Amino acid sequence: MRYELFYWPEIPGRGEFIRLALEEAGADYVDVARAKGYDPLMRLLKDEKTQQPPFAPPILRAGKQFIAQTANILLFLGAHHAIAPKTEAGRLWTNQLQLTIADFLVEAHDTHHPIGGGFYYEDQKPEAKRRAEDFRANRMPKFLGYFERVLERNRSGDRHLVGARITYADLSLFNMVAGLTFAFPRAMKRLARRHKRVIALHDRVAARPRIAAYRASDRWIDFNQQGIFRAYPELDG
Amino acid sequence: MRYELFYWPEIPGRGEFIRLALEEAGADYVDVARAKGYDPLMRLLKDEKTQQPPFAPPILRAGKQFIAQTANILLFLGAHHAIAPKTEAGRLWTNQLQLTIADFLVEAHDTHHPIGGGFYYEDQKPEAKRRAEDFRANRMPKFLGYFERVLERNRSGDRHLVGARITYADLSLFNMVAGLTFAFPRAMKRLARRHKRVIALHDRVAARPRIAAYRASDRWIDFNQQGIFRAYPELDG
Repeated sequence: MRYELFYWPEIPGRGEFIRLALEEAGADYVDVARAKGYDPLMRLLKDEKTQQPPFAPPILRAGKQFIAQTANILLFLGAHHAIAPKTEAGRLWTNQLQLTIADFLVEAHDTHHPIGGGFYYEDQKPEAKRRAEDFRANRMPKFLGYFERVLERNRSGDRHLVGARITYADLSLFNMVAGLTFAFPRAMKRLARRHKRVIALHDRVAARPRIAAYRASDRWIDFNQQGIFRAYPELDG
Repeated sequence: MRYELFYWPEIPGRGEFIRLALEEAGADYVDVARAKGYDPLMRLLKDEKTQQPPFAPPILRAGKQFIAQTANILLFLGAHHAIAPKTEAGRLWTNQLQLTIADFLVEAHDTHHPIGGGFYYEDQKPEAKRRAEDFRANRMPKFLGYFERVLERNRSGDRHLVGARITYADLSLFNMVAGLTFAFPRAMKRLARRHKRVIALHDRVAARPRIAAYRASDRWIDFNQQGIFRAYPELDG
């Protein structure tokens, strides 16, 4: 079965967590809006007959099923591909880590949009500066310290967040570190020293054959100023 | 087995989504910090030996398992009690709705803390006013309209979000409506007319015997000014 991913075609965004999982799983998929433009995505979002309407992209089509919400799509992919544990406890732990990454992601986004996504960045710059300062000083160390601790305490070793194999949580933490390094290079440089396991995990994921091949392909979208992670030097202290 | 819920004892907060699910399921549980004070919760959060540390409460103990992240705990409870569908597709849809409620909840919270949870409300009042205005004008109608549509399109009828039976997604939407009504009574009064199915669902959940008994008990915690939902009239337009 060929999966169909529906997501905005010009940013990595939340869709990137899904792309990374599909790529590492070696799954057959088409990134619909990149292949065919906006129309199919807009039709899906506006379809008045869908029984189970999605609130927002990313949306994964698997046969007749349309699945939305990033962590939910990953839960599904983890159940059908070798990127999550097979046991219930292992799957819950992976999902728990993914949801914590999702919380971290919202806070990273809100550094440049603290007043709301409906306003331009230019209309909330002083507020963004204040929120970003708190994010760099308090939230980044708290979240990164948490994931460092999870790696440190993994009884199967500190190479993975969950057990002794790659899971989608590792791929998501990789994307988070990559995004933070794009948006907050100075803060990340300072924080890297105390979060060596997290950084090493990022580097190992980047070097995995399927991920490296994906990043070298034209399927990969670079971070840019329209996405969740944005490089505004004034927010990097 | 008696579940143990670890959550802040003085607010409904995120713990309330778990309490409602446990109550409706008729599960045996103890709300640890309410029964025994802060110590066991703080010990759990600071435990340096936990193999799978939680990032934050709520945390549910089920035997030897400690499960955190609201939607993840509900996913677990839904698999073990009659508050979620049995099929994979049904569980994913319920989880998808729960994650959308979680997004809505973060935005409701951020109306009074747009610059960050580390600052007092008093230190971000103008920003809060601006964010709350956008929340009332754009985000509340968008989210409430979404859930109204989900109810309308449910082919088993508009009494439940998922199929023909109660699920934890219904309980969570009930709590969301209750919280919004506490925090934004004027906005909710205006919005109620166009979201009759959502309001009717709230009223039906409130009248369910186990939920009504819970609300009449001393286990129930009223909304207050320390929680996620806060009644600041200046944010209600």
